[in-house]
Amino acid sequence: MRTYGDYAARARAGLAAQPMLMNMGARVEEVTPGYMRLSMPFNPDFTQQHGFLHAGAVTAAMDSAAGFAALTLMPEDAGVLTVELKSSLLRPAQGAVFGFEGRVVKPGRTLIFTEGVAWCDDGDDRVEIARLSATMMVVQGRDGIRG
Amino acid sequence: MRTYGDYAARARAGLAAQPMLMNMGARVEEVTPGYMRLSMPFNPDFTQQHGFLHAGAVTAAMDSAAGFAALTLMPEDAGVLTVELKSSLLRPAQGAVFGFEGRVVKPGRTLIFTEGVAWCDDGDDRVEIARLSATMMVVQGRDGIRG
Amino acid sequence: MRTYGDYAARARAGLAAQPMLMNMGARVEEVTPGYMRLSMPFNPDFTQQHGFLHAGAVTAAMDSAAGFAALTLMPEDAGVLTVELKSSLLRPAQGAVFGFEGRVVKPGRTLIFTEGVAWCDDGDDRVEIARLSATMMVVQGRDGIRG
Amino acid sequence: MRTYGDYAARARAGLAAQPMLMNMGARVEEVTPGYMRLSMPFNPDFTQQHGFLHAGAVTAAMDSAAGFAALTLMPEDAGVLTVELKSSLLRPAQGAVFGFEGRVVKPGRTLIFTEGVAWCDDGDDRVEIARLSATMMVVQGRDGIRG
Repeated sequence: MRTYGDYAARARAGLAAQPMLMNMGARVEEVTPGYMRLSMPFNPDFTQQHGFLHAGAVTAAMDSAAGFAALTLMPEDAGVLTVELKSSLLRPAQGAVFGFEGRVVKPGRTLIFTEGVAWCDDGDDRVEIARLSATMMVVQGRDGIRG
Repeated sequence: MRTYGDYAARARAGLAAQPMLMNMGARVEEVTPGYMRLSMPFNPDFTQQHGFLHAGAVTAAMDSAAGFAALTLMPEDAGVLTVELKSSLLRPAQGAVFGFEGRVVKPGRTLIFTEGVAWCDDGDDRVEIARLSATMMVVQGRDGIRG
Repeated sequence: MRTYGDYAARARAGLAAQPMLMNMGARVEEVTPGYMRLSMPFNPDFTQQHGFLHAGAVTAAMDSAAGFAALTLMPEDAGVLTVELKSSLLRPAQGAVFGFEGRVVKPGRTLIFTEGVAWCDDGDDRVEIARLSATMMVVQGRDGIRG
Repeated sequence: MRTYGDYAARARAGLAAQPMLMNMGARVEEVTPGYMRLSMPFNPDFTQQHGFLHAGAVTAAMDSAAGFAALTLMPEDAGVLTVELKSSLLRPAQGAVFGFEGRVVKPGRTLIFTEGVAWCDDGDDRVEIARLSATMMVVQGRDGIRG
């Protein structure tokens, strides 16, 4: 998959520029062409009424990983916006440390198809808690949309 | 649509018990059988890299409205969990005040189909920014899952 | 919503040019800007193992209605392709006559957001059997993609 | 993943009992616990207006593969119904021979989460044309719903 310039730095800078993900405590663990992996400790500020991470928080983290996975394949002056996403909540999001990954399944000039996975690290095992299917749009030449 | 006991109080209490939605600044504006409407001021803590509300925050608010819309039709000892959701991001989420509504499109004993809408209040007009399609599961007799 | 030329004729011609929908027995009942409604009698050739219409057939009909609803808002030399769709199967698709409608919820130059509904006509009542959320792409200047 | 009795025979019989898939020309290539793979030659009767396989036909084949993948993990007296599905159409469905696979990503007593892929065989290469995310429901003790 073709990349442009320092794609990894752009993707990392993009995540660092998301106040919501920074407030959640997310950090980048790995960036490769068409791929980003995040980690995040349990955060009670982003839970729902049963004490699990909120479906919206889990979805936000997978969406960000997938969006910046898409950004790694875009020209340097482009930005990425989520067109739509589907999130399947396989299990309640409970645990101490969470992982989230996004990857491009089909790049394109206008639309980029992505998928994502969320899991809880339970000792040596990954327990999958959610899966994402999302469409990203490449945006160029629109004020304020870059990264 | 059949309700049980003080369904509106249960739905309001459910939202109040969600730390994430409380941190976002969401509040309940209306609850009727199979329906909940929320409002929320713009909140920079829940934005993405271009300054818009994060897709995950918009989705979280629609998901909560839809989940508690489903809860209004459930027995008093039941809880609700999101099975899966699809969120379509029609426009960037920018503006001063946002509205979110969830409604039941098909109730059931095990599964409840819901839809949601998010909009920005722009003077007298509603500018739609997102739409939701989500499946909720009724949970009974499981420890810690109520409301 | 802006239309171009005889949008209704183009939408009707588009459906008539779909062998699958013609084999299903679908016919156009109504076309307005951003909207198409189809009808179809029960067709045993498109059922699944329990004798209901196959989820794929119900989805195909909603998708076609939504796609041509989008086409009514496109320039005359444009074509429409489905980017992605989500179909919620509310009830088993059993009955004598089915209706399907698609409508545009947000037009755009590149992407058009649509929704759809499928129902069974049960005397005077509509029993909803499925709902659709789908994203359509406007295609211009690509060989073989028109209508 | 736990299976019951001759799960492969039940899954094969289930597909053979779907008139729509038989009319499409689909056949089972492989069944393992939680997995089914189908093949199908190009079929002009299931195309849309540009001559590609209809999104609904591609979705139907992935949905059937995913549904019977789920059935391989169900008790012998159970049936499977699709609750909802999301289909992403990565590329136009053109080619001579198509493959479709469905697999269980999270089994459960009531709900089974599945995913699917569709591709065109282009010589030695698989060109992916679509991906599926679908939720299946286990149905027991309901008249007429078995397999």
